[in-house]
Amino acid sequence: MIELSLIGMGMGNPDHITRQGVAALNAADLILVPRKGADKADLADVRSQLCKELLTNPATRMVPFDMPVRDSADPDYQGGVNRWHDAIALLWLAAIKTHLPQGGRLALLVWGDPSLYDSTLRIAARLGQQLPLRVSVVPGITALQALTAAHAMALNEINAPVVITTGRHLRDHGWPPQASTVAVMLDGQCSFQHMSPEGITIWWGAYLGMPQQICISGPLAEVSGQILAQREAARAAHGWIMDTYLLRKSSVSIN
Amino acid sequence: MIELSLIGMGMGNPDHITRQGVAALNAADLILVPRKGADKADLADVRSQLCKELLTNPATRMVPFDMPVRDSADPDYQGGVNRWHDAIALLWLAAIKTHLPQGGRLALLVWGDPSLYDSTLRIAARLGQQLPLRVSVVPGITALQALTAAHAMALNEINAPVVITTGRHLRDHGWPPQASTVAVMLDGQCSFQHMSPEGITIWWGAYLGMPQQICISGPLAEVSGQILAQREAARAAHGWIMDTYLLRKSSVSIN
Repeated sequence: MIELSLIGMGMGNPDHITRQGVAALNAADLILVPRKGADKADLADVRSQLCKELLTNPATRMVPFDMPVRDSADPDYQGGVNRWHDAIALLWLAAIKTHLPQGGRLALLVWGDPSLYDSTLRIAARLGQQLPLRVSVVPGITALQALTAAHAMALNEINAPVVITTGRHLRDHGWPPQASTVAVMLDGQCSFQHMSPEGITIWWGAYLGMPQQICISGPLAEVSGQILAQREAARAAHGWIMDTYLLRKSSVSIN
Repeated sequence: MIELSLIGMGMGNPDHITRQGVAALNAADLILVPRKGADKADLADVRSQLCKELLTNPATRMVPFDMPVRDSADPDYQGGVNRWHDAIALLWLAAIKTHLPQGGRLALLVWGDPSLYDSTLRIAARLGQQLPLRVSVVPGITALQALTAAHAMALNEINAPVVITTGRHLRDHGWPPQASTVAVMLDGQCSFQHMSPEGITIWWGAYLGMPQQICISGPLAEVSGQILAQREAARAAHGWIMDTYLLRKSSVSIN
C-alpha cells in the first residue's frame, strides 16, 4: 500500500506552507521532486530549498525524477494532456518500485493548491489503477490568494460571483457571460492584451510572496504595456516567471 | 500608525495556518477576537483555542469585542451590509484607542482567507479613514480548498472555468450561464434544494478539516435529503455549522 500525500506548497516561499503541510512532509518516507529541464533549474531549486528548510526527519528521502515534456503543439489538446499524465504516472510508478518496493508514505509538493489547475490528482488516479493507493490532500495557498494578499484586496465584490478561468479558455471563449470579476491562471501568453480594455481594471502579480515579487494594477488600457514589458524583463532576469491576474469590469451590473 | 495584519486562519484547525500566519500572530501587540453572542460561543472558542495553541509571544494581548448583529431582515441588503461594516469599524477604533493608544501592531484572525467572501478588508478601509493605517494580508486556506482536499478532488475540470458564488446569488440568479462547475459559499439556506437536480452532482462538506468533519457526495437528486438531515442534526449537536459545496453539471459542454 502506498499512502500518497499531495501537499500544497503555495508559491515557493516556505512560509506559505501550513503546519499540516510541514507535518505531512516530515511524515513521508519518500518525496518525489520533479525536474523540468535545465531552463527551469531555478524552479526545481525552489522545491529543494523548501524541503531543506522544512524537513527535520532524517529518514525522509528526496528523489528527483525528470518530468516528460508535453507537446504543446499537439492539436488534440485534451488527448495530449491525457498522454502526458499517463507518462508521468509511469515515472512515479518506476520510482516507487525502486525506492518504496515494500510500500510506504510518498509525498509530492504541488505548486499552489492541488485542487486548482493542477494535474497531480489526475495522475494519482492513474497510479491507483496500478497499485493499492490511498490519496490525501493538504491544501496550500493558491496564486490567486497570494495575488489578492499582495494587493490587499478582496477577490469578490459583495455577494457577487467570481469566475476562475485559464488564459486559453479566455482566448477561445472571450469574457465569461455576466461575469464582473474574472481571475485568470495558466496564462503564459498574457491573453489580456487581446481583449478590448474598455472599462476593465487589472490586478497583476508575479513571483507572488517571494522576494522578487512584482505587482502592477490599474486600468487595463493604461497598464497593459507596462505589464508586458516588466514581465519580459523579469523572465529574462530570473530564467522563469509565474504570474496571475484578476480582471474586473466596472460597467457590468449583475445585482 | 497602526499596522494591521489580517491573517487567514483556515477552518479553525491550528494546523491550517501557514508559517507566515503563525509569525504574524506572534508579531502582534494586540489580537482582536470577535464574539458573536452566546449561541456562537463554540465558534469564538475556536479562535481562542487557536491562539492558545499558536501564540508563543508573552507580550501579545488578546482582547475580545462583541460583534454587532446585522439586520438580515433589512430589505436594503447592500445598505444593511454597509451600515454593519461601519459599526464594526467603530468598535475596532474604540478598541485601538483603549489598548493601542500609541499605535502598534494589530492582528485579526479571519475565517478562511481574507480575500474570499469576507468583510474584514472592507472594514479595514473604513478604519483607514480614521487613523494612519498600513494593512497586510496573510492568505489562509479557504473552505473550498478544505472541501476539495477532503474529497481529494480537483475544483476545475481540465482547462475549464469555475464559478464561485453565494447561496443568495444562486437563489436570485439561478445557475450561472455556461458554467459546468459552481462552488457555493455563505449558504445557510441550502439553496441546492430549490434547483432542478437533473444532471447535477454535489460534493458537500461541513466542519472541514476539523475532527467533526462530515462529507457527502453524489447525484444531487439522491443525496440532497441526506445532506439536509445530517446538516440539521450536526448543527443541533454542535450549536453551529459551517459548510460549503461544489456542484457540477455533467451535461454542460463548454469546450
